[in-house]
Amino acid sequence: MTAGTAPVVLRLHERDNVAIVGNEGGLPAGTRLPDGLQLRERVPQAHKVLLVDLKAGDAVRRYGVVIGYALADMAAGSWVHERRLRLPEARSLEGLPLATAQRPAAEPLQGFSFDGYRNVDGSVGTRNLLAVSTSVQCVTGVLEVALERIRRELLPRYPNVDGVVGLEHAYGCGVAIDALGAEIPIRTLRHLMRNPNFGGELMLLSLGCEKLQPERLLPEGSIALHAGATLGHVRLQDEQHVGFGAMIAAILQQAETHLDRLNRRRRETVPASELVVGVQCGGSDAFSGVTANPAVGACADLLVRAGATVLFSETTEVRDAVEQLTARAASPEVAARIVEQMAWYDAYLARGGVDRSANTTPGNKAGGLSNIVEKAMGSIVKSGTMPIAAALAPGEQLHGRKGLIYAATPASDFVCGTLQLAAGMNLHVFTTGRGTPYGLAACPVLKVATRSELARRWHDLIDLDAGGIARGEATVEQMGWQLFRQLLQVASGHRTWAERHGLANDLVLFNPAPIT
Amino acid sequence: MTAGTAPVVLRLHERDNVAIVGNEGGLPAGTRLPDGLQLRERVPQAHKVLLVDLKAGDAVRRYGVVIGYALADMAAGSWVHERRLRLPEARSLEGLPLATAQRPAAEPLQGFSFDGYRNVDGSVGTRNLLAVSTSVQCVTGVLEVALERIRRELLPRYPNVDGVVGLEHAYGCGVAIDALGAEIPIRTLRHLMRNPNFGGELMLLSLGCEKLQPERLLPEGSIALHAGATLGHVRLQDEQHVGFGAMIAAILQQAETHLDRLNRRRRETVPASELVVGVQCGGSDAFSGVTANPAVGACADLLVRAGATVLFSETTEVRDAVEQLTARAASPEVAARIVEQMAWYDAYLARGGVDRSANTTPGNKAGGLSNIVEKAMGSIVKSGTMPIAAALAPGEQLHGRKGLIYAATPASDFVCGTLQLAAGMNLHVFTTGRGTPYGLAACPVLKVATRSELARRWHDLIDLDAGGIARGEATVEQMGWQLFRQLLQVASGHRTWAERHGLANDLVLFNPAPIT
Repeated sequence: MTAGTAPVVLRLHERDNVAIVGNEGGLPAGTRLPDGLQLRERVPQAHKVLLVDLKAGDAVRRYGVVIGYALADMAAGSWVHERRLRLPEARSLEGLPLATAQRPAAEPLQGFSFDGYRNVDGSVGTRNLLAVSTSVQCVTGVLEVALERIRRELLPRYPNVDGVVGLEHAYGCGVAIDALGAEIPIRTLRHLMRNPNFGGELMLLSLGCEKLQPERLLPEGSIALHAGATLGHVRLQDEQHVGFGAMIAAILQQAETHLDRLNRRRRETVPASELVVGVQCGGSDAFSGVTANPAVGACADLLVRAGATVLFSETTEVRDAVEQLTARAASPEVAARIVEQMAWYDAYLARGGVDRSANTTPGNKAGGLSNIVEKAMGSIVKSGTMPIAAALAPGEQLHGRKGLIYAATPASDFVCGTLQLAAGMNLHVFTTGRGTPYGLAACPVLKVATRSELARRWHDLIDLDAGGIARGEATVEQMGWQLFRQLLQVASGHRTWAERHGLANDLVLFNPAPIT
Repeated sequence: MTAGTAPVVLRLHERDNVAIVGNEGGLPAGTRLPDGLQLRERVPQAHKVLLVDLKAGDAVRRYGVVIGYALADMAAGSWVHERRLRLPEARSLEGLPLATAQRPAAEPLQGFSFDGYRNVDGSVGTRNLLAVSTSVQCVTGVLEVALERIRRELLPRYPNVDGVVGLEHAYGCGVAIDALGAEIPIRTLRHLMRNPNFGGELMLLSLGCEKLQPERLLPEGSIALHAGATLGHVRLQDEQHVGFGAMIAAILQQAETHLDRLNRRRRETVPASELVVGVQCGGSDAFSGVTANPAVGACADLLVRAGATVLFSETTEVRDAVEQLTARAASPEVAARIVEQMAWYDAYLARGGVDRSANTTPGNKAGGLSNIVEKAMGSIVKSGTMPIAAALAPGEQLHGRKGLIYAATPASDFVCGTLQLAAGMNLHVFTTGRGTPYGLAACPVLKVATRSELARRWHDLIDLDAGGIARGEATVEQMGWQLFRQLLQVASGHRTWAERHGLANDLVLFNPAPIT
């Protein structure tokens, strides 16, 4: 705490018996809080201070829910951290409230639009990208050489194309392709190539002898489903490719036919309802659930009221909020689908001998998040308050579903982002407390900082600073509106910091099946 | 078959009741073979022709072992393919012969050397590379921008450095890091950075809040174990990195201290015993076990006689030869270690509901390999005939062990290559029948074609054509010697085709544990 700065503690719910220290640098032992309580020890920024005396076994409440049980007696003014709490059991998936939190329809939000690329199938891109899909990792080395040449030699002649993206991955061969769970990476690849930012131009690079044959990746009729799509296919083992030079030439030639069509496209004004916004958090701290994530939640409500689609995900980070989610489901069927996805994930983790508690990181704990329950409660607020219109299994596509959608994915940033892209995401919001330079080549990623210190330090990586909420300088609703407006700008072509630096992480497929 | 070309069929073992068609284009129905047998139907190149009449249930033998049982009666001259065979049960891991095939020590091969980079710890590099390790995928976007600048701005000033390699991967966070099996990706990353081709210069890029903290990646003392190694570490969340530009500057500055030391190194003549050759096959066909793999096996024998180390791997592709492997083990302890690794892999596959039969690919079958038993018999010949001196679990390091080593890995080309690099491989031999443009940035990969047609078509990707063996133009032993000499040249700095084109596939870690 800077000398002279008043102590700031944040309590989020009237039932809470802990509050979060807001001051940069934390608060020293002996600090007297506004309500008269004195700190018994130093409490770091974003960490929890206990507001009442507790006996061993008593519940600690944040966000109005039990995030853990005291392992020993603790006096008011103590620092509550992960080594002083016992993790509650996961909520059973039996007897959950199903679509019980019905509410009157929210007032539609009208008159908001952005400039996007309208695709033949009706979807809208926020970027105009050529994507080169791959059926197997064997072709990646050749593709990388070809991509470098496309960027250098071809793109300058197609100024309306924003870039070229290689959809590279570690799947396609050396995997148990008929195992249970293998349908997830396969459908993810199938759907990734139809992301709205790729304009319906499907270009596939395959090897020839791989397990994931093009007919399996794209079964008959699956191209036709994507109205207006055209497929270009280069197979390296084909006899006409005599040598490496011929392979590269074939890829460049195929790329040109797609670039030529993409280059003729222009942005046009479309309603905000065409946005498909994936929300995610990574490198979270205890402010995530206080500043950035609530702002994203407020923005999610605005987006849904404007008729747009919001994807929230990260199953291990919302598992402990399952009761809230099933209650908010638009119908008992949707609630059942949510439970089905959670049960699948519970079983997946159990097969590997772990549970949801494997989620939290050293950085989460250093950032004040004691365990997965506290992390989950702060994570789920990104979803806002609207009814949950549908639930998607990992790698499933939206297929025209609108509104607030639970897209079940692991919480791993890159696996989640990849699966949201496969669902049809055309814009990505990513909140971070500890700081991560996350980016995707296929879709703009707008990064929101939970703390102003991070936003100042990473001034050319963070797109929006939500830290003002903790200081009372902005309300959650104001910050939600600011994010909403900024999203429309980015969707219209305004480049994020990650885009300006060319920062992009690799895609990572979710493959729950063995490799061979 | 070209008109006028005599039919060629290859029978490998006196107990075999099938032979392989050698002619390009295969042989038409009615063809009369040299021994008088007439083909009852067309048999493609590299596929099997039945030499005797069989009843349903009779055994089909190739390499002197049963590769399957006839599903129906078949007459001599029939085409034997995967739909006509039943897969035998996997050999039980009980009651195996342990180190029973003891043989007199092979005559040492002396006087062979290459020009390599001698490291302080005694190991030898075949290339002089700067490797930048990463603790987590979050840093990859930033690293890619930095690598591009290192290549463009720094490398021209360090002409004795062969290149810079980013050791990028999808591990480090969003994973169940305390689960059983998680030790495999962690030790793989730990050992990858000590590959002999990186000259003991350990440079690590980390984020800060990730699960795989640098102390866990490199526990106290683990650096000291690598005599002469120096560790440079850049952590993006550190407070001194104000903005993206500062991050890039810090990476470039750290890279320069390592490049400066690497640039002072020179090649020196070292004995061939310093080679650590990883052997692998991918895109296999029925010729793999006839031409390229036997040539690699002959070369492996020469290498071991010269005191060098040969790593053979691909557990699902050698599982059916377990009896040969345990018999060839140098001691009962080594045999027990082989069985332990096979049992682990059987259990890993069973957890995912599959078995070794998930290995073969459509390309293998089109190439004449009916099932995993036939593929395994053709794969294992790469290991030659020497005693097996040790067995390594996935991600383990050699730690000075020499001779023929079974390094247990999945057969996935990229996972196997990554694990062989972690073991300490400084040179890689890769055989292919269908053709794959495999390459690694960390180590030269010499590619051997099983068929001359492929070698001609991929004239600037295949480094050695073993197809002459099938035509009787070269013996297996001659081809083994040719490969041995070519390996010494490549180890001395002669660039492979993949290196000349800059072809490299990404590393892929083996993570049997769940992601979160």
